[in-house]
Amino acid sequence: MQSNELKDMANANGADVSPLERLVTFLRPDMDAVNAEITARMTSDVPLITNIAKYLISAGGKRLRPLLTLAAARSLDGDMTRAYGLAATVEFIHTATLLHDDVVDASHERRGQAVANDVFGNQASVLVGDFLFSRAFQLMVADGSLETLRILSDASAIIAEGEVLQLQMQRHLETGWEDYLQMIGAKTAALFAAACEVGAVVSAASPDLQKSLHEYGFSLGIAFQMADDLLDYAAEEEKLGKKVGDDFREGKISAPVLLAYAKADAAEKDFWRRTIGRGEQTEDDLAQAQQIMSRHNIIEEGLALAESYAQAAQRSLEPLPASHVKELLHQIAAYVVRRTY
Amino acid sequence: MQSNELKDMANANGADVSPLERLVTFLRPDMDAVNAEITARMTSDVPLITNIAKYLISAGGKRLRPLLTLAAARSLDGDMTRAYGLAATVEFIHTATLLHDDVVDASHERRGQAVANDVFGNQASVLVGDFLFSRAFQLMVADGSLETLRILSDASAIIAEGEVLQLQMQRHLETGWEDYLQMIGAKTAALFAAACEVGAVVSAASPDLQKSLHEYGFSLGIAFQMADDLLDYAAEEEKLGKKVGDDFREGKISAPVLLAYAKADAAEKDFWRRTIGRGEQTEDDLAQAQQIMSRHNIIEEGLALAESYAQAAQRSLEPLPASHVKELLHQIAAYVVRRTY
Repeated sequence: MQSNELKDMANANGADVSPLERLVTFLRPDMDAVNAEITARMTSDVPLITNIAKYLISAGGKRLRPLLTLAAARSLDGDMTRAYGLAATVEFIHTATLLHDDVVDASHERRGQAVANDVFGNQASVLVGDFLFSRAFQLMVADGSLETLRILSDASAIIAEGEVLQLQMQRHLETGWEDYLQMIGAKTAALFAAACEVGAVVSAASPDLQKSLHEYGFSLGIAFQMADDLLDYAAEEEKLGKKVGDDFREGKISAPVLLAYAKADAAEKDFWRRTIGRGEQTEDDLAQAQQIMSRHNIIEEGLALAESYAQAAQRSLEPLPASHVKELLHQIAAYVVRRTY
Repeated sequence: MQSNELKDMANANGADVSPLERLVTFLRPDMDAVNAEITARMTSDVPLITNIAKYLISAGGKRLRPLLTLAAARSLDGDMTRAYGLAATVEFIHTATLLHDDVVDASHERRGQAVANDVFGNQASVLVGDFLFSRAFQLMVADGSLETLRILSDASAIIAEGEVLQLQMQRHLETGWEDYLQMIGAKTAALFAAACEVGAVVSAASPDLQKSLHEYGFSLGIAFQMADDLLDYAAEEEKLGKKVGDDFREGKISAPVLLAYAKADAAEKDFWRRTIGRGEQTEDDLAQAQQIMSRHNIIEEGLALAESYAQAAQRSLEPLPASHVKELLHQIAAYVVRRTY
């Protein structure tokens, strides 16, 4: 039995279907339109660009960000044709940052596929990322709204700042919690916020509603990234679709590391300084890191923190008119924290 | 005596002053305004970004592209405040592509300084490039014209395509001349054209004049890049400010290589296939390549081709009203081909 069939059965039974899957099902015709837009706009006269773009499309991914644009627009009865173009734009910006992030991190697997730079070379990844980024701006210009251009060019600059912040924090165990929040706010939550906000713009929503959707996206993004950081130490590898422990091996400063370091005794501090601070790691160190985290209930502590952002996201939705999509967005905020992928 | 004093003396005497230097002198207050804009807009809350930006500013460079925007706007009596912002935008896009190009090429010197990626790391170069690129779009949004946004986002996408084309052509000696022209048109001439065209836009110029300036920039860019390709085999190293032979060592397909390969006898074909095609090079091979080119008068042949584009650029200027700046733009087209830096 194919996994898609299993999913369809789960849908039919109404059992074990996540709110995210329900939103995907509800917005399937919209997502199909976005995917068609993505395919149409990713092509280039330069075959290598089209090939890498196709490779990335086949990798798929959750398409969470364009889904947020669609949901925001649907929840406010917006102009869906504009939403399709902008949702594609948001996904292009995200894909460009992934391509550049993969080059930067020298990570080797993402979404369960080899990353593009291993297949096509670092050089092509940088340049195709630049192409997708430029193409995103071409799509925005075609949309013709300076407001969406402002929102997404601001988000793009903030993302780059967040990535540089992350680079600077690498291996620095003394990083403050506020600095960590600033970094994931820039690296991840800014695009979640922008994705939601442009959905409000194409709905000619009031400034207050536009702000509410921005804030929903931002808090959701923080919750999502924090949960992602936790999953890197806690997830089952097959479900995550990437290797557990990547962040550990790269010496990334993330929520579980900062929480564990704050609670560490002298021996544990030495452990973190050696493995994260100086990057001196042996085979058993990841298991050891997980044991230390387990001893201090770090994952549960982190999940509780992430949940507080999910709740903030839910509160931001209050001014929106009641709708099925609003209800699903509400549930998704809780879901992104407790997901196991 | 400082080199600046020497230059001032040369200015005073009117001797040995290139038309480019004369344009720089004529537009000095405008360029000062652009440089102030660049400095103000390159700053970020993230210190590493500001540091790399400062490093790039101190490297200076010719600022040829923003100068074209200023000259185009001045020649048509345009809105110079808008021209300053857009000139800064053009330089940001150019600097971002240089940063990414340096990562890609693993070259080690540019403008006589170590390239940024050697000093700050490849990772920072990719991300700061992304930041500058995003910042460029923020500046365009601040300008508020969808027309300039269209021109510069189109140019950005074309540049990325050109860079990928160059990557694909690397070591491919059978590359056709038309493909080479397409590549340098995308990689270099597209931004020259856009830089000139936005100068026309801020001058509310007629569509015909806008097109004329676009075409001037495009032909100038082709002439400039072709001459640049020739200089890599012909220039005196101190004047060029980068190592002669970089293109050769990287197996780049450029005008002199294609021209030399077309005229090569069997032994020379073997030489090019080994050194460029397979990248198997010894110490003496660059000198050997230069001797082969000298034997076939390749540099002069290439300069004649570049000159034909310079003349096309000059013809494109004809519809412009007579002015001192127009005269200098005319002379610069010839100058970029015969320059020695």
